[in-house]
Amino acid sequence: MFYTIDILGTIAFAISGVLVATHKKLDLFGILIIAFVTAIGGGTIRDVLIGQTPVGWMKDMNFTYAIIASAVFAIVFRSKINYLRTSLFLFDTIGIGLYTVVGIEKGLSAELHPIICVALGTISACFGGVIRDILCNEIPVIFRKEIYATACILGGISYFIIRQLPIEGDFVFVIAGLVVIITRLVAVKFKISLPSIY
Amino acid sequence: MFYTIDILGTIAFAISGVLVATHKKLDLFGILIIAFVTAIGGGTIRDVLIGQTPVGWMKDMNFTYAIIASAVFAIVFRSKINYLRTSLFLFDTIGIGLYTVVGIEKGLSAELHPIICVALGTISACFGGVIRDILCNEIPVIFRKEIYATACILGGISYFIIRQLPIEGDFVFVIAGLVVIITRLVAVKFKISLPSIY
Amino acid sequence: MFYTIDILGTIAFAISGVLVATHKKLDLFGILIIAFVTAIGGGTIRDVLIGQTPVGWMKDMNFTYAIIASAVFAIVFRSKINYLRTSLFLFDTIGIGLYTVVGIEKGLSAELHPIICVALGTISACFGGVIRDILCNEIPVIFRKEIYATACILGGISYFIIRQLPIEGDFVFVIAGLVVIITRLVAVKFKISLPSIY
Repeated sequence: MFYTIDILGTIAFAISGVLVATHKKLDLFGILIIAFVTAIGGGTIRDVLIGQTPVGWMKDMNFTYAIIASAVFAIVFRSKINYLRTSLFLFDTIGIGLYTVVGIEKGLSAELHPIICVALGTISACFGGVIRDILCNEIPVIFRKEIYATACILGGISYFIIRQLPIEGDFVFVIAGLVVIITRLVAVKFKISLPSIY
Repeated sequence: MFYTIDILGTIAFAISGVLVATHKKLDLFGILIIAFVTAIGGGTIRDVLIGQTPVGWMKDMNFTYAIIASAVFAIVFRSKINYLRTSLFLFDTIGIGLYTVVGIEKGLSAELHPIICVALGTISACFGGVIRDILCNEIPVIFRKEIYATACILGGISYFIIRQLPIEGDFVFVIAGLVVIITRLVAVKFKISLPSIY
Repeated sequence: MFYTIDILGTIAFAISGVLVATHKKLDLFGILIIAFVTAIGGGTIRDVLIGQTPVGWMKDMNFTYAIIASAVFAIVFRSKINYLRTSLFLFDTIGIGLYTVVGIEKGLSAELHPIICVALGTISACFGGVIRDILCNEIPVIFRKEIYATACILGGISYFIIRQLPIEGDFVFVIAGLVVIITRLVAVKFKISLPSIY
Protein backbone atom coordinates (compact mmCIF):
# COMPACT_ATOMS: atom_id res chain seq x y z
CA MET A 1 0.00 0.00 0.00
CA PHE A 2 2.87 2.39 0.85
CA TYR A 3 4.38 1.71 -2.57
CA THR A 4 1.09 2.48 -4.35
CA ILE A 5 0.72 5.79 -2.55
CA ASP A 6 4.39 6.57 -3.29
CA ILE A 7 3.69 6.14 -7.02
CA LEU A 8 0.47 8.19 -6.73
CA GLY A 9 2.42 10.96 -5.03
CA THR A 10 5.04 10.85 -7.79
CA ILE A 11 2.29 11.12 -10.42
CA ALA A 12 0.71 14.09 -8.64
CA PHE A 13 4.09 15.86 -8.35
CA ALA A 14 4.88 15.20 -12.04
CA ILE A 15 1.52 16.64 -13.13
CA SER A 16 2.00 19.70 -10.89
CA GLY A 17 5.36 20.20 -12.63
CA VAL A 18 3.64 20.16 -16.04
CA LEU A 19 1.02 22.65 -14.83
CA VAL A 20 3.70 25.13 -13.69
CA ALA A 21 5.92 24.58 -16.76
CA THR A 22 3.17 25.14 -19.32
CA HIS A 23 2.82 28.72 -18.10
CA LYS A 24 6.49 29.37 -18.90
CA LYS A 25 6.50 28.78 -22.67
CA LEU A 26 8.88 25.85 -22.42
CA ASP A 27 9.16 23.31 -25.20
CA LEU A 28 8.09 19.68 -24.75
CA PHE A 29 11.48 18.56 -23.47
CA GLY A 30 11.58 21.40 -20.94
CA ILE A 31 8.15 20.45 -19.63
CA LEU A 32 9.18 16.81 -19.28
CA ILE A 33 12.32 17.76 -17.33
CA ILE A 34 10.33 20.04 -15.01
CA ALA A 35 7.86 17.21 -14.42
CA PHE A 36 10.77 14.90 -13.64
CA VAL A 37 12.62 17.14 -11.20
CA THR A 38 9.41 18.09 -9.40
CA ALA A 39 8.69 14.42 -8.85
CA ILE A 40 12.15 13.17 -7.90
CA GLY A 41 14.02 16.31 -6.78
CA GLY A 42 13.24 16.08 -3.07
CA GLY A 43 14.15 12.41 -2.77
CA THR A 44 17.30 12.99 -4.82
CA ILE A 45 18.59 15.74 -2.52
CA ARG A 46 17.77 13.58 0.49
CA ASP A 47 19.66 10.58 -0.91
CA VAL A 48 22.68 12.70 -1.91
CA LEU A 49 22.86 14.38 1.52
CA ILE A 50 22.94 11.06 3.36
CA GLY A 51 25.13 9.40 0.73
CA GLN A 52 22.67 6.80 -0.57
CA THR A 53 23.84 6.68 -4.16
CA PRO A 54 22.96 5.83 -6.91
CA VAL A 55 19.85 7.76 -5.87
CA GLY A 56 16.50 6.00 -5.56
CA TRP A 57 14.80 6.70 -8.90
CA MET A 58 17.85 5.35 -10.73
CA LYS A 59 17.27 1.94 -9.22
CA ASP A 60 13.48 1.51 -9.60
CA MET A 61 12.21 2.17 -13.14
CA ASN A 62 8.56 2.37 -12.09
CA PHE A 63 9.11 5.98 -11.02
CA THR A 64 10.49 6.92 -14.43
CA TYR A 65 7.61 5.18 -16.21
CA ALA A 66 5.03 6.82 -13.93
CA ILE A 67 6.55 10.28 -14.47
CA ILE A 68 6.78 10.00 -18.26
CA ALA A 69 3.26 8.57 -18.53
CA SER A 70 1.70 11.21 -16.29
CA ALA A 71 3.62 14.06 -17.96
CA VAL A 72 2.41 12.91 -21.39
CA PHE A 73 -1.11 12.56 -20.00
CA ALA A 74 -1.01 16.05 -18.50
CA ILE A 75 0.31 17.60 -21.73
CA VAL A 76 -2.31 15.88 -23.90
CA PHE A 77 -5.23 16.64 -21.61
CA ARG A 78 -3.98 20.00 -20.41
CA SER A 79 -7.22 21.78 -21.34
CA LYS A 80 -9.24 19.35 -19.19
CA ILE A 81 -6.82 19.07 -16.30
CA ASN A 82 -8.74 21.67 -14.34
CA TYR A 83 -11.48 19.12 -13.69
CA LEU A 84 -8.86 17.05 -11.92
CA ARG A 85 -7.56 19.78 -9.66
CA THR A 86 -9.25 18.40 -6.55
CA SER A 87 -7.92 14.88 -7.20
CA LEU A 88 -4.46 16.28 -7.90
CA PHE A 89 -4.50 18.30 -4.72
CA LEU A 90 -5.42 15.15 -2.80
CA PHE A 91 -2.67 13.07 -4.47
CA ASP A 92 -0.17 15.83 -3.84
CA THR A 93 -1.19 16.11 -0.19
CA ILE A 94 -1.06 12.35 0.31
CA GLY A 95 2.28 12.43 -1.50
CA ILE A 96 3.90 14.92 0.86
CA GLY A 97 2.54 12.96 3.82
CA LEU A 98 4.20 9.81 2.56
CA TYR A 99 7.41 11.47 1.41
CA THR A 100 7.77 13.06 4.85
CA VAL A 101 7.47 9.66 6.49
CA VAL A 102 9.89 8.02 4.01
CA GLY A 103 12.44 10.78 4.66
CA ILE A 104 12.17 10.29 8.44
CA GLU A 105 12.60 6.54 7.99
CA LYS A 106 15.76 7.05 5.90
CA GLY A 107 17.13 9.48 8.47
CA LEU A 108 16.50 6.97 11.27
CA SER A 109 18.23 4.16 9.39
CA ALA A 110 21.23 6.50 8.89
CA GLU A 111 21.15 6.99 12.69
CA LEU A 112 20.60 10.73 12.52
CA HIS A 113 19.19 13.01 15.24
CA PRO A 114 15.36 13.35 15.30
CA ILE A 115 15.52 17.03 14.26
CA ILE A 116 17.66 16.08 11.26
CA CYS A 117 15.19 13.29 10.44
CA VAL A 118 12.35 15.83 10.43
CA ALA A 119 14.45 18.06 8.17
CA LEU A 120 15.11 15.12 5.82
CA GLY A 121 11.39 14.32 5.69
CA THR A 122 10.56 17.93 4.87
CA ILE A 123 13.30 18.07 2.23
CA SER A 124 11.96 14.87 0.62
CA ALA A 125 8.46 16.28 0.46
CA CYS A 126 9.17 19.88 -0.52
CA PHE A 127 12.41 20.31 -2.46
CA GLY A 128 11.13 18.86 -5.72
CA GLY A 129 8.81 21.87 -5.84
CA VAL A 130 11.66 24.18 -4.83
CA ILE A 131 13.84 23.01 -7.75
CA ARG A 132 10.81 23.27 -10.09
CA ASP A 133 10.32 26.91 -9.11
CA ILE A 134 14.03 27.74 -9.39
CA LEU A 135 14.21 26.21 -12.89
CA CYS A 136 11.14 28.29 -13.81
CA ASN A 137 12.88 31.40 -12.42
CA GLU A 138 10.50 32.05 -9.52
CA ILE A 139 10.97 32.39 -5.79
CA PRO A 140 9.88 28.97 -4.48
CA VAL A 141 6.16 29.09 -3.68
CA ILE A 142 6.58 27.16 -0.42
CA PHE A 143 8.66 30.04 0.98
CA ARG A 144 5.90 32.51 0.27
CA LYS A 145 2.52 31.11 1.15
CA GLU A 146 0.46 28.17 2.24
CA ILE A 147 1.01 25.72 5.03
CA TYR A 148 3.05 23.15 3.14
CA ALA A 149 6.47 22.56 4.59
CA THR A 150 4.98 23.46 7.96
CA ALA A 151 2.61 20.50 7.66
CA CYS A 152 5.62 18.24 7.02
CA ILE A 153 7.46 19.64 10.03
CA LEU A 154 4.41 19.16 12.28
CA GLY A 155 3.97 15.61 11.00
CA GLY A 156 7.64 14.89 11.59
CA ILE A 157 7.56 16.22 15.15
CA SER A 158 4.38 14.25 15.89
CA TYR A 159 6.16 11.09 14.71
CA PHE A 160 8.76 11.43 17.42
CA ILE A 161 6.14 12.27 20.05
CA ILE A 162 3.83 9.37 19.13
CA ARG A 163 6.76 6.97 19.12
CA GLN A 164 7.01 7.44 22.87
CA LEU A 165 3.55 5.92 23.26
CA PRO A 166 2.98 2.14 23.33
CA ILE A 167 1.99 2.00 19.65
CA GLU A 168 3.30 -0.46 17.07
CA GLY A 169 6.04 0.91 14.71
CA ASP A 170 4.32 0.95 11.31
CA PHE A 171 1.25 2.53 12.83
CA VAL A 172 3.35 5.46 14.09
CA PHE A 173 4.37 6.20 10.50
CA VAL A 174 0.73 6.11 9.39
CA ILE A 175 -0.33 8.56 12.10
CA ALA A 176 2.56 10.94 11.31
CA GLY A 177 1.63 10.85 7.62
CA LEU A 178 -1.99 11.59 8.52
CA VAL A 179 -0.91 14.58 10.62
CA VAL A 180 0.83 16.02 7.54
CA ILE A 181 -2.20 15.38 5.34
CA ILE A 182 -4.82 16.66 7.79
CA THR A 183 -2.78 19.77 8.65
CA ARG A 184 -2.56 20.66 4.98
CA LEU A 185 -6.23 19.92 4.29
CA VAL A 186 -7.36 22.00 7.27
CA ALA A 187 -5.00 24.85 6.36
CA VAL A 188 -6.24 25.01 2.77
CA LYS A 189 -9.90 24.59 3.79
CA PHE A 190 -9.74 27.46 6.30
CA LYS A 191 -7.18 29.50 4.35
CA ILE A 192 -4.67 29.42 7.19
CA SER A 193 -1.20 30.63 6.29
CA LEU A 194 2.00 31.50 8.11
CA PRO A 195 2.46 35.16 8.94
CA SER A 196 4.72 37.21 6.71
CA ILE A 197 6.78 39.40 8.99
CA TYR A 198 6.96 42.47 6.77
CA MET B 1 41.48 10.86 -29.12
CA PHE B 2 38.46 10.68 -26.77
CA TYR B 3 40.46 12.60 -24.16
CA THR B 4 41.40 15.34 -26.64
CA ILE B 5 37.77 15.82 -27.67
CA ASP B 6 36.75 15.80 -24.00
CA ILE B 7 39.15 18.69 -23.36
CA LEU B 8 37.96 20.50 -26.52
CA GLY B 9 34.36 20.12 -25.32
CA THR B 10 35.33 21.51 -21.92
CA ILE B 11 37.00 24.50 -23.60
CA ALA B 12 33.92 25.16 -25.73
CA PHE B 13 31.63 24.96 -22.71
CA ALA B 14 33.88 27.29 -20.68
CA ILE B 15 33.91 29.88 -23.47
CA SER B 16 30.13 29.65 -23.85
CA GLY B 17 29.92 30.36 -20.11
CA VAL B 18 32.04 33.50 -20.55
CA LEU B 19 29.87 34.65 -23.47
CA VAL B 20 26.67 34.36 -21.40
CA ALA B 21 28.23 35.85 -18.26
CA THR B 22 29.60 38.96 -19.95
CA HIS B 23 26.05 40.06 -20.77
CA LYS B 24 25.19 40.01 -17.07
CA LYS B 25 27.61 42.66 -15.76
CA LEU B 26 29.43 40.18 -13.55
CA ASP B 27 32.92 40.91 -12.27
CA LEU B 28 35.95 38.88 -13.36
CA PHE B 29 35.54 36.31 -10.60
CA GLY B 30 31.87 35.84 -11.43
CA ILE B 31 32.70 35.24 -15.09
CA LEU B 32 35.36 32.69 -14.17
CA ILE B 33 32.93 30.79 -11.91
CA ILE B 34 30.25 30.76 -14.61
CA ALA B 35 32.82 29.42 -17.09
CA PHE B 36 33.76 26.76 -14.58
CA VAL B 37 30.26 25.54 -13.72
CA THR B 38 29.20 25.54 -17.37
CA ALA B 39 32.15 23.28 -18.18
CA ILE B 40 32.01 20.89 -15.22
CA GLY B 41 28.42 21.21 -13.92
CA GLY B 42 26.88 18.38 -15.93
CA GLY B 43 29.61 15.88 -15.11
CA THR B 44 29.53 16.93 -11.45
CA ILE B 45 25.80 16.27 -11.08
CA ARG B 46 26.24 12.93 -12.87
CA ASP B 47 29.06 11.87 -10.53
CA VAL B 48 27.18 12.98 -7.40
CA LEU B 49 24.00 11.14 -8.45
CA ILE B 50 25.82 7.84 -8.93
CA GLY B 51 28.11 8.39 -5.94
CA GLN B 52 31.45 8.67 -7.76
CA THR B 53 33.14 11.12 -5.42
CA PRO B 54 35.41 13.06 -5.30
CA VAL B 55 33.90 14.17 -8.62
CA GLY B 56 35.91 13.87 -11.84
CA TRP B 57 37.37 17.38 -12.29
CA MET B 58 38.81 17.23 -8.78
CA LYS B 59 41.03 14.34 -9.78
CA ASP B 60 42.33 15.46 -13.20
CA MET B 61 43.85 18.96 -13.17
CA ASN B 62 43.87 19.27 -16.98
CA PHE B 63 40.21 20.26 -16.90
CA THR B 64 40.88 23.07 -14.43
CA TYR B 65 43.83 24.33 -16.49
CA ALA B 66 41.83 24.15 -19.74
CA ILE B 67 38.90 26.04 -18.18
CA ILE B 68 41.02 28.81 -16.66
CA ALA B 69 43.08 29.23 -19.85
CA SER B 70 40.04 29.35 -22.13
CA ALA B 71 38.12 31.68 -19.80
CA VAL B 72 41.07 34.10 -19.72
CA PHE B 73 41.38 33.80 -23.51
CA ALA B 74 37.68 34.49 -24.00
CA ILE B 75 37.75 37.51 -21.67
CA VAL B 76 40.83 39.03 -23.34
CA PHE B 77 39.63 38.45 -26.90
CA ARG B 78 35.95 38.99 -26.20
CA SER B 79 35.60 41.60 -28.96
CA LYS B 80 36.93 39.15 -31.52
CA ILE B 81 35.22 36.03 -30.27
CA ASN B 82 32.45 36.45 -32.81
CA TYR B 83 34.82 35.29 -35.54
CA LEU B 84 35.12 32.03 -33.64
CA ARG B 85 31.39 31.38 -33.28
CA THR B 86 31.34 28.63 -35.90
CA SER B 87 34.33 26.84 -34.36
CA LEU B 88 32.81 27.22 -30.90
CA PHE B 89 29.50 25.81 -32.07
CA LEU B 90 31.35 22.83 -33.52
CA PHE B 91 33.38 22.25 -30.33
CA ASP B 92 30.24 22.57 -28.26
CA THR B 93 28.36 20.12 -30.48
CA ILE B 94 31.22 17.63 -30.45
CA GLY B 95 31.39 18.20 -26.70
CA ILE B 96 27.77 17.24 -26.02
CA GLY B 97 28.19 14.22 -28.28
CA LEU B 98 31.13 13.01 -26.24
CA TYR B 99 29.65 13.96 -22.85
CA THR B 100 26.50 12.00 -23.72
CA VAL B 101 28.57 8.93 -24.50
CA VAL B 102 30.70 9.32 -21.36
CA GLY B 103 27.55 9.58 -19.25
CA ILE B 104 26.10 6.42 -20.78
CA GLU B 105 29.39 4.61 -20.15
CA LYS B 106 29.37 5.65 -16.47
CA GLY B 107 25.74 4.57 -16.13
CA LEU B 108 26.54 1.17 -17.62
CA SER B 109 29.49 0.64 -15.30
CA ALA B 110 27.18 1.46 -12.36
CA GLU B 111 24.84 -1.23 -13.77
CA LEU B 112 21.90 1.10 -14.28
CA HIS B 113 18.91 0.60 -16.59
CA PRO B 114 19.36 1.80 -20.22
CA ILE B 115 16.79 4.59 -19.78
CA ILE B 116 18.68 5.85 -16.73
CA CYS B 117 21.94 5.65 -18.70
CA VAL B 118 20.41 7.84 -21.42
CA ALA B 119 19.26 10.27 -18.71
CA LEU B 120 22.79 10.32 -17.22
CA GLY B 121 24.27 11.03 -20.65
CA THR B 122 21.84 13.88 -21.21
CA ILE B 123 22.51 15.27 -17.73
CA SER B 124 26.28 15.17 -18.38
CA ALA B 125 25.90 17.05 -21.64
CA CYS B 126 23.22 19.59 -20.70
CA PHE B 127 23.20 20.44 -17.00
CA GLY B 128 26.32 22.59 -17.06
CA GLY B 129 24.34 24.96 -19.24
CA VAL B 130 21.32 24.64 -16.94
CA ILE B 131 23.35 25.70 -13.88
CA ARG B 132 24.94 28.53 -15.92
CA ASP B 133 21.50 29.90 -16.78
CA ILE B 134 20.18 29.53 -13.22
CA LEU B 135 23.20 31.41 -11.82
CA CYS B 136 22.56 34.12 -14.42
CA ASN B 137 18.89 34.24 -13.32
CA GLU B 138 17.36 32.99 -16.57
CA ILE B 139 15.09 30.09 -17.43
CA PRO B 140 17.51 27.49 -18.84
CA VAL B 141 17.76 27.96 -22.61
CA ILE B 142 17.62 24.22 -23.31
CA PHE B 143 14.08 24.11 -21.89
CA ARG B 144 12.93 26.79 -24.28
CA LYS B 145 14.33 26.29 -27.73
CA GLU B 146 16.68 24.38 -30.00
CA ILE B 147 17.20 20.67 -30.40
CA TYR B 148 19.88 20.20 -27.79
CA ALA B 149 18.94 17.77 -25.05
CA THR B 150 16.79 16.02 -27.63
CA ALA B 151 19.91 15.28 -29.69
CA CYS B 152 21.51 13.72 -26.61
CA ILE B 153 18.44 11.60 -25.94
CA LEU B 154 18.31 10.39 -29.56
CA GLY B 155 22.03 9.58 -29.48
CA GLY B 156 21.57 7.72 -26.20
CA ILE B 157 18.68 5.66 -27.53
CA SER B 158 20.59 4.87 -30.72
CA TYR B 159 23.48 3.58 -28.60
CA PHE B 160 21.28 0.89 -27.09
CA ILE B 161 19.77 0.01 -30.48
CA ILE B 162 23.13 -0.21 -32.27
CA ARG B 163 24.55 -2.33 -29.46
CA GLN B 164 22.19 -5.12 -30.53
CA LEU B 165 24.00 -5.29 -33.88
CA PRO B 166 27.23 -7.25 -34.37
CA ILE B 167 29.44 -4.15 -34.03
CA GLU B 168 32.52 -3.80 -31.85
CA GLY B 169 32.02 -1.99 -28.51
CA ASP B 170 34.07 1.19 -28.96
CA PHE B 171 32.59 1.73 -32.38
CA VAL B 172 29.07 1.75 -30.93
CA PHE B 173 30.09 4.70 -28.74
CA VAL B 174 31.46 6.54 -31.78
CA ILE B 175 28.25 6.05 -33.77
CA ALA B 176 26.07 7.15 -30.83
CA GLY B 177 28.19 10.27 -30.42
CA LEU B 178 27.87 10.99 -34.15
CA VAL B 179 24.07 10.66 -33.91
CA VAL B 180 24.08 13.41 -31.25
CA ILE B 181 26.37 15.62 -33.32
CA ILE B 182 24.57 15.13 -36.64
CA THR B 183 21.12 15.60 -35.09
CA ARG B 184 22.19 18.91 -33.64
CA LEU B 185 23.92 20.09 -36.84
CA VAL B 186 20.89 19.18 -38.97
CA ALA B 187 18.48 20.79 -36.49
CA VAL B 188 20.44 24.06 -36.43
CA LYS B 189 21.00 24.04 -40.22
CA PHE B 190 17.30 23.59 -40.97
CA LYS B 191 16.05 25.54 -37.95
CA ILE B 192 14.15 22.55 -36.55
CA SER B 193 12.89 22.96 -33.00
CA LEU B 194 10.58 21.14 -30.64
CA PRO B 195 7.00 22.37 -30.57
CA SER B 196 5.92 24.62 -27.73
CA ILE B 197 2.52 23.43 -26.59
CA TYR B 198 1.00 26.82 -25.75
CA MET C 1 38.78 28.10 19.60
CA PHE C 2 38.33 27.00 15.98
CA TYR C 3 35.00 25.44 16.91
CA THR C 4 33.78 28.64 18.59
CA ILE C 5 34.62 30.73 15.53
CA ASP C 6 32.97 28.13 13.32
CA ILE C 7 29.74 28.53 15.32
CA LEU C 8 30.09 32.35 15.25
CA GLY C 9 30.51 32.21 11.47
CA THR C 10 27.41 30.03 11.19
CA ILE C 11 25.45 32.52 13.28
CA ALA C 12 26.61 35.43 11.11
CA PHE C 13 25.69 33.58 7.92
CA ALA C 14 22.25 32.62 9.30
CA ILE C 15 21.52 36.25 10.26
CA SER C 16 22.66 37.47 6.83
CA GLY C 17 20.20 34.99 5.34
CA VAL C 18 17.37 36.46 7.42
CA LEU C 19 18.35 39.99 6.38
CA VAL C 20 18.17 39.10 2.66
CA ALA C 21 15.01 37.00 3.03
CA THR C 22 12.99 39.66 4.85
CA HIS C 23 13.21 41.89 1.78
CA LYS C 24 11.55 39.21 -0.32
CA LYS C 25 8.16 38.93 1.45
CA LEU C 26 8.74 35.33 2.45
CA ASP C 27 6.77 33.74 5.26
CA LEU C 28 8.41 32.64 8.51
CA PHE C 29 9.24 29.18 7.22
CA GLY C 30 10.80 30.59 4.07
CA ILE C 31 12.98 32.92 6.13
CA LEU C 32 14.12 30.05 8.35
CA ILE C 33 15.03 27.92 5.34
CA ILE C 34 16.98 30.77 3.74
CA ALA C 35 18.86 31.28 7.04
CA PHE C 36 19.62 27.57 7.10
CA VAL C 37 20.91 27.21 3.55
CA THR C 38 22.98 30.37 3.82
CA ALA C 39 24.68 28.95 6.89
CA ILE C 40 25.20 25.35 5.77
CA GLY C 41 25.00 25.51 1.96
CA GLY C 42 28.71 25.96 1.26
CA GLY C 43 29.82 23.18 3.58
CA THR C 44 27.09 20.90 2.24
CA ILE C 45 28.22 21.29 -1.39
CA ARG C 46 31.83 20.75 -0.30
CA ASP C 47 30.97 17.53 1.57
CA VAL C 48 28.82 16.20 -1.28
CA LEU C 49 31.54 16.90 -3.88
CA ILE C 50 34.16 14.96 -1.95
CA GLY C 51 31.71 12.28 -0.84
CA GLN C 52 31.73 12.93 2.92
CA THR C 53 28.15 11.98 3.65
CA PRO C 54 25.98 12.29 5.70
CA VAL C 55 27.06 15.93 5.41
CA GLY C 56 28.54 17.76 8.39
CA TRP C 57 25.54 19.63 9.87
CA MET C 58 23.59 16.37 10.01
CA LYS C 59 26.06 14.95 12.48
CA ASP C 60 26.61 17.89 14.86
CA MET C 61 23.37 19.36 16.22
CA ASN C 62 25.04 22.53 17.54
CA PHE C 63 24.92 24.02 14.06
CA THR C 64 21.17 23.44 13.78
CA TYR C 65 20.57 24.92 17.25
CA ALA C 66 22.78 27.94 16.48
CA ILE C 67 20.99 28.58 13.17
CA ILE C 68 17.47 28.30 14.59
CA ALA C 69 18.34 30.46 17.61
CA SER C 70 20.01 33.18 15.54
CA ALA C 71 17.26 33.18 12.90
CA VAL C 72 14.61 33.61 15.60
CA PHE C 73 16.73 36.34 17.21
CA ALA C 74 17.15 38.14 13.86
CA ILE C 75 13.42 37.93 13.09
CA VAL C 76 12.38 39.22 16.54
CA PHE C 77 14.92 42.04 16.64
CA ARG C 78 14.85 42.83 12.92
CA SER C 79 14.15 46.51 13.49
CA LYS C 80 17.24 46.81 15.69
CA ILE C 81 19.56 44.59 13.69
CA ASN C 82 21.03 47.60 11.93
CA TYR C 83 22.94 48.48 15.11
CA LEU C 84 24.65 45.13 14.79
CA ARG C 85 25.74 45.50 11.19
CA THR C 86 29.38 46.07 12.07
CA SER C 87 29.48 43.06 14.39
CA LEU C 88 27.72 40.95 11.77
CA PHE C 89 30.15 42.03 9.09
CA LEU C 90 33.01 41.02 11.39
CA PHE C 91 31.47 37.62 12.21
CA ASP C 92 30.79 37.03 8.53
CA THR C 93 34.33 37.96 7.58
CA ILE C 94 35.83 35.78 10.32
CA GLY C 95 33.42 33.07 9.18
CA ILE C 96 34.61 33.03 5.57
CA GLY C 97 38.21 33.05 6.78
CA LEU C 98 37.58 29.97 8.86
CA TYR C 99 35.37 28.21 6.31
CA THR C 100 38.08 28.70 3.69
CA VAL C 101 40.63 27.06 5.95
CA VAL C 102 38.28 24.19 6.86
CA GLY C 103 37.61 23.56 3.16
CA ILE C 104 41.34 23.44 2.40
CA GLU C 105 41.87 21.04 5.28
CA LYS C 106 39.12 18.71 3.98
CA GLY C 107 40.60 18.86 0.48
CA LEU C 108 44.03 17.96 1.82
CA SER C 109 42.71 14.99 3.79
CA ALA C 110 40.99 13.78 0.59
CA GLU C 111 44.44 14.07 -1.06
CA LEU C 112 43.34 16.58 -3.67
CA HIS C 113 45.54 18.97 -5.68
CA PRO C 114 46.29 22.35 -4.02
CA ILE C 115 44.25 24.24 -6.64
CA ILE C 116 41.26 22.01 -5.95
CA CYS C 117 41.77 22.55 -2.20
CA VAL C 118 41.63 26.31 -2.75
CA ALA C 119 38.45 25.81 -4.81
CA LEU C 120 36.93 23.69 -2.00
CA GLY C 121 37.79 26.37 0.56
CA THR C 122 36.19 29.06 -1.58
CA ILE C 123 33.10 26.90 -2.17
CA SER C 124 32.76 26.28 1.59
CA ALA C 125 32.92 29.99 2.31
CA CYS C 126 30.86 31.39 -0.56
CA PHE C 127 28.28 28.95 -1.88
CA GLY C 128 25.88 29.30 1.05
CA GLY C 129 25.41 32.88 -0.11
CA VAL C 130 25.12 31.73 -3.72
CA ILE C 131 22.26 29.34 -2.90
CA ARG C 132 20.61 32.06 -0.77
CA ASP C 133 20.61 34.45 -3.72
CA ILE C 134 19.35 31.81 -6.17
CA LEU C 135 16.47 30.90 -3.83
CA CYS C 136 15.66 34.62 -3.60
CA ASN C 137 15.73 34.84 -7.42
CA GLU C 138 18.75 37.14 -7.71
CA ILE C 139 22.06 36.86 -9.51
CA PRO C 140 24.47 35.88 -6.70
CA VAL C 141 25.95 39.01 -5.18
CA ILE C 142 29.47 37.55 -5.01
CA PHE C 143 29.54 37.36 -8.82
CA ARG C 144 28.76 41.03 -9.13
CA LYS C 145 30.68 43.06 -6.62
CA GLU C 146 32.93 43.15 -3.60
CA ILE C 147 36.13 41.31 -2.92
CA TYR C 148 34.63 38.24 -1.29
CA ALA C 149 35.45 35.02 -3.07
CA THR C 150 38.68 36.68 -4.16
CA ALA C 151 39.70 37.04 -0.52
CA CYS C 152 39.12 33.32 -0.05
CA ILE C 153 41.17 32.48 -3.12
CA LEU C 154 44.05 34.73 -1.96
CA GLY C 155 43.94 33.16 1.50
CA GLY C 156 43.94 29.70 -0.02
CA ILE C 157 46.91 30.43 -2.25
CA SER C 158 48.81 31.99 0.64
CA TYR C 159 48.23 28.80 2.65
CA PHE C 160 50.13 26.74 0.12
CA ILE C 161 52.91 29.35 -0.12
CA ILE C 162 53.34 29.70 3.65
CA ARG C 163 53.39 25.94 4.05
CA GLN C 164 56.74 25.90 2.24
CA LEU C 165 58.22 27.96 5.11
CA PRO C 166 59.45 26.36 8.33
CA ILE C 167 56.26 27.18 10.24
CA GLU C 168 54.26 24.81 12.40
CA GLY C 169 51.11 23.29 10.73
CA ASP C 170 48.24 24.82 12.75
CA PHE C 171 49.86 28.22 12.54
CA VAL C 172 49.81 28.06 8.72
CA PHE C 173 46.01 27.67 8.88
CA VAL C 174 45.74 30.69 11.18
CA ILE C 175 47.81 32.88 8.85
CA ALA C 176 45.83 31.77 5.78
CA GLY C 177 42.57 32.56 7.59
CA LEU C 178 43.95 35.98 8.55
CA VAL C 179 44.87 36.69 4.91
CA VAL C 180 41.22 36.09 3.96
CA ILE C 181 39.96 38.31 6.78
CA ILE C 182 42.42 41.16 6.24
CA THR C 183 41.95 41.13 2.45
CA ARG C 184 38.21 41.52 2.91
CA LEU C 185 38.50 44.19 5.60
CA VAL C 186 40.95 46.22 3.51
CA ALA C 187 38.83 45.82 0.36
CA VAL C 188 35.68 47.02 2.10
CA LYS C 189 37.49 49.83 3.95
CA PHE C 190 39.02 51.23 0.75
CA LYS C 191 36.09 50.24 -1.50
CA ILE C 192 38.28 48.05 -3.70
CA SER C 193 36.38 45.82 -6.11
CA LEU C 194 37.19 43.61 -9.04
CA PRO C 195 36.86 45.23 -12.45
CA SER C 196 33.75 44.51 -14.46
CA ILE C 197 34.88 43.93 -18.03
CA TYR C 198 31.92 45.50 -19.80
